[in-house]
Amino acid sequence: MTPLQLVRQVTAITGFTHAAGVEVLAAEPGKVELGLARKPELLQFNGYFHGGVVSGLADHAAGAAATTALPAGKIAVTVDLHVNFLAPASGDRIVARASTLQVGNTICVVSVAVETETTSGPRVCAVANAVLRVVDMPSVQTPGP
Amino acid sequence: MTPLQLVRQVTAITGFTHAAGVEVLAAEPGKVELGLARKPELLQFNGYFHGGVVSGLADHAAGAAATTALPAGKIAVTVDLHVNFLAPASGDRIVARASTLQVGNTICVVSVAVETETTSGPRVCAVANAVLRVVDMPSVQTPGP
Amino acid sequence: MTPLQLVRQVTAITGFTHAAGVEVLAAEPGKVELGLARKPELLQFNGYFHGGVVSGLADHAAGAAATTALPAGKIAVTVDLHVNFLAPASGDRIVARASTLQVGNTICVVSVAVETETTSGPRVCAVANAVLRVVDMPSVQTPGP
Amino acid sequence: MTPLQLVRQVTAITGFTHAAGVEVLAAEPGKVELGLARKPELLQFNGYFHGGVVSGLADHAAGAAATTALPAGKIAVTVDLHVNFLAPASGDRIVARASTLQVGNTICVVSVAVETETTSGPRVCAVANAVLRVVDMPSVQTPGP
Repeated sequence: MTPLQLVRQVTAITGFTHAAGVEVLAAEPGKVELGLARKPELLQFNGYFHGGVVSGLADHAAGAAATTALPAGKIAVTVDLHVNFLAPASGDRIVARASTLQVGNTICVVSVAVETETTSGPRVCAVANAVLRVVDMPSVQTPGP
Repeated sequence: MTPLQLVRQVTAITGFTHAAGVEVLAAEPGKVELGLARKPELLQFNGYFHGGVVSGLADHAAGAAATTALPAGKIAVTVDLHVNFLAPASGDRIVARASTLQVGNTICVVSVAVETETTSGPRVCAVANAVLRVVDMPSVQTPGP
Repeated sequence: MTPLQLVRQVTAITGFTHAAGVEVLAAEPGKVELGLARKPELLQFNGYFHGGVVSGLADHAAGAAATTALPAGKIAVTVDLHVNFLAPASGDRIVARASTLQVGNTICVVSVAVETETTSGPRVCAVANAVLRVVDMPSVQTPGP
Repeated sequence: MTPLQLVRQVTAITGFTHAAGVEVLAAEPGKVELGLARKPELLQFNGYFHGGVVSGLADHAAGAAATTALPAGKIAVTVDLHVNFLAPASGDRIVARASTLQVGNTICVVSVAVETETTSGPRVCAVANAVLRVVDMPSVQTPGP
């Protein structure tokens, strides 16, 4: 399985990321890019993407970036997530770009930038750092027909 | 409007928290308790609540706790959110309890604990700290009939 | 060696904590209390304890609290540290109280409150959360005569 | 006063940064570079720079980077600091490079990388993000003769 296939599989079968409509735009070992299109159920009262949705996309991107850098059979689960919100997450889509800063046997550290696509071009609306723990991957079933 | 009414209104009209099904269990100035029942679209591949959903509930609870402590017409928006995940968010419901640590004219700091309800009783699955900025509340319309 | 002896030894031989004058006020498995008296070289331009000194005391307390909860021969090293500064660290002494939230085989999570002693009583000036990694303790020599 | 002069003044008169020996290597609006040479009183028991010292240098660099981006008469004080430790802070000197991610009227956000100088070249040993609050600068006296 390529990193792209792995991230697509985990993202597509996942309840939250599947229901939210997370798209895997790119994936290579240690680097993952996820997109999420605007939908009413992802917003807060002022019409921007909810901070929790931005955090969730960052968290998922961090987990995917770390996992694609690990040996087969290992998966990275988030230990802690720190998000700085820099600007309203407006626009029709947000994109999270995650890159590993450190890949160890027990710990990974990942940096994430989340951009909104505005009429005047892309703008970083949040940055996040995540620490993840390396665990054995549970057997993941491809959803059957 | 009481703190409880205010939090219920903001939570009910909000896309993400409305769609997710966030319940306002209690609210007083500076203290808010939110519940979220297990649903497939809130989970990750292993059947636990997704880290992004846990973060989103913590973020919303922090904003509500800070806002209820502010003068009327002011609202707190998250500047940064730090979540430590301590245990799998299993169980049928997660509950976030948020309390203000500091309420200032421009900045608030809030501490949040998220518990899961397990068969052996409640267990803290995450703790979070949020820094929020105080801004003028936009006019919020009650959804009409 | 008791937890108190262990923390005293590591604190006393350490360059930074020794030079700063960190005192070990109490230590039991998973709980440590450290004090630091005001000295000119610990302050910032406005006469309060420097944020870096507050962070350093919190970090050292977190490491000590985690290490005293681990089996002999293991030590906890900080992976990440998040500090919320709530009030100026004024007063003649600051005290950090650290308690473990989670003690695992590879990861520990510790919560810390730092208080200042003011004329109107103690006041929390900062709270911190730290994630630490469990490693084998290097052989530590007691400084010779 | 140029940004470089401002940062040198605040750093030189400050107890902690003066006593530790922090050098201002470069400063322009929104970007500051600080160096700190190895000394026994900055280390921990294993001979690396203490995590609190690394955090303190990052904190000071963040404050300086934000303050140089503000109008004259304003200063940025840290609200929260999040440090990810990536590698042992070994080597003879550590250097912190801070850049503003956001400069607002009430809040600034700064990103910092701390490098060690090793025999095989520079290596990032920590990254940090800080949120700072903008306040009026207290009158700062140049130390007299």
